[in-house]
Amino acid sequence: MNISPLPRGLLATVVLLSLIVPTYAADPLPSWNEGKAKQAIVEFVGKVTRAGTPDFVPAAERIATFDNDGTLWAEQPLYFQGLFMVDRVKDLAPEHLDWKSREPFASLLKGDLKGAMSGGERAVVEMAMTTHAGMTSEEFEKMVKDWIANARHPVTKRLYTEMVYQPMLELLAYLRTNGFKTFIVSGGGIEFMRPWTEKVYGIPPEQVVGSSIKTKFEMRDGKPVLVRLPEINFVDDKAGKPIGIQQHIGRRPIAAFGNSDGDLQMLQWTAAGAGPRFCLFVHHTDAMREWAYDRESAIGRLDKGLDEARAKGWTVVSMKDDWNTIYPK
Amino acid sequence: MNISPLPRGLLATVVLLSLIVPTYAADPLPSWNEGKAKQAIVEFVGKVTRAGTPDFVPAAERIATFDNDGTLWAEQPLYFQGLFMVDRVKDLAPEHLDWKSREPFASLLKGDLKGAMSGGERAVVEMAMTTHAGMTSEEFEKMVKDWIANARHPVTKRLYTEMVYQPMLELLAYLRTNGFKTFIVSGGGIEFMRPWTEKVYGIPPEQVVGSSIKTKFEMRDGKPVLVRLPEINFVDDKAGKPIGIQQHIGRRPIAAFGNSDGDLQMLQWTAAGAGPRFCLFVHHTDAMREWAYDRESAIGRLDKGLDEARAKGWTVVSMKDDWNTIYPK
Repeated sequence: MNISPLPRGLLATVVLLSLIVPTYAADPLPSWNEGKAKQAIVEFVGKVTRAGTPDFVPAAERIATFDNDGTLWAEQPLYFQGLFMVDRVKDLAPEHLDWKSREPFASLLKGDLKGAMSGGERAVVEMAMTTHAGMTSEEFEKMVKDWIANARHPVTKRLYTEMVYQPMLELLAYLRTNGFKTFIVSGGGIEFMRPWTEKVYGIPPEQVVGSSIKTKFEMRDGKPVLVRLPEINFVDDKAGKPIGIQQHIGRRPIAAFGNSDGDLQMLQWTAAGAGPRFCLFVHHTDAMREWAYDRESAIGRLDKGLDEARAKGWTVVSMKDDWNTIYPK
Repeated sequence: MNISPLPRGLLATVVLLSLIVPTYAADPLPSWNEGKAKQAIVEFVGKVTRAGTPDFVPAAERIATFDNDGTLWAEQPLYFQGLFMVDRVKDLAPEHLDWKSREPFASLLKGDLKGAMSGGERAVVEMAMTTHAGMTSEEFEKMVKDWIANARHPVTKRLYTEMVYQPMLELLAYLRTNGFKTFIVSGGGIEFMRPWTEKVYGIPPEQVVGSSIKTKFEMRDGKPVLVRLPEINFVDDKAGKPIGIQQHIGRRPIAAFGNSDGDLQMLQWTAAGAGPRFCLFVHHTDAMREWAYDRESAIGRLDKGLDEARAKGWTVVSMKDDWNTIYPK
């Protein structure tokens, strides 16, 4: 087979041109309405990718971090990991007959989520540890994979992965096309997200930062395992987010995306670096197609963040006005 | 400018061919002598990259983890981070006049390293925390950058980055050329490595896993900083290595490279996965060009690991026999 039908020099030229000539493709953000938010994103990406200009940022430093709950997928009426916990408690109940008369499990099994939560942090931690610890990391991964493939949201009846935001999927892809490395930085459990983020968001496990519990390495029948322990290791929320970013990524993002006060420190940390920076809050304003909540919400409260975004000129996306589509079709 | 002098179909064909036709370049591992170790590496890489065969591993799963001290660079007569600590104590001494009469600093300042270390773990931790904590992450990064650019090794008088192993640099590049993602998984401090690993090894900060101290997010004059606290966060050594790998990478490596018993659990964890696996120990056998040590050494002891490598058929590199070059020229 003659694999090179062209003279060597011409071949090289063609290959080179194919790498450097920009392609004017269709709108990469079709689910975003024309407006200030979309414009700000496109301008920022254009600015940092234009070689030879003062605002140019080398590809290796184009780090973008995304909160997950409420930013990449929905988070109402409860963080989805909370709903996973509820489902797990029900699954485990037959092996724990005492739960019928023991709080917080008794309330939860009766479908009384509020009652179960009324025990406060202690009750939530007990339920979380019962459902998230005591197994190996591989066993937990399998549980999450099974759940994410089959469980359905109590309100929409959709699979949870069908409740990711289409405009954010487009934004992730758009940033990656422009040389960005996209990370999740979430208060959610790191091992709860990793089994599905690559397939759903195109974000591989090593680019997921989250909360974690401690694990222990041990040999079982000559085979090494990591056992999940009922002890908090790291809480990747609020002031924990810049810490998690530094710990996992080791460089400051140039763009950060969140939706709640839990993301404020991540945006502050991002904004405080030198050179061009981009900070964005998704504001849940769409009671018809999704949920509308901000300053008073127990889940995903956006209060201080909204004030700071306005004071500093960060981008605030109104889901109602800026997005023509919410979920993937 | 006519940027596309060829018909569109032909252009596409040429571009495609340029991507899929293998190039038979010069030997990618010229510092490796022909022998069992080199052969095992090349065979493994060939096996996992051959599409359509049972041993093929998709690029996203081609994770390779490398210990640093004694595997990618030298570690005698003391881990280089220990020598950094010594240099820092000397730099800081003028601000701490009491150190002249206070152990372990007094011995260290007299050049008596053994005396300083005789206080055991407590003394080492005190020196480590004094030199590694109390500043912001940015200030620490600057200290490391200054030191790595200027400090010289007490025996060879080389810069420390001139004491990396040329054969391992070639191996890192060879793996990356074949679609592997290369990570450092070291007992050394994560923030001690990140300021220079990208330049020296081609490994970016987000692919460095290491030991760490705790940090605190705070606002100083309206500017967010991360302050390094004198408290251990994570020790990425021995059984800590699989834990660090799971925490940071979230998938099991298919290839792991170490040189001491501190790497044994990382190699066990790697070997225990399904499909083709590659485990390698660098054995320090070259007293003339580097150092010769193994079962009895306080630094970089290789004892149980050597036995397990032989029992399991892992690759053991003899630096004396397998490498024709040690340091970059």
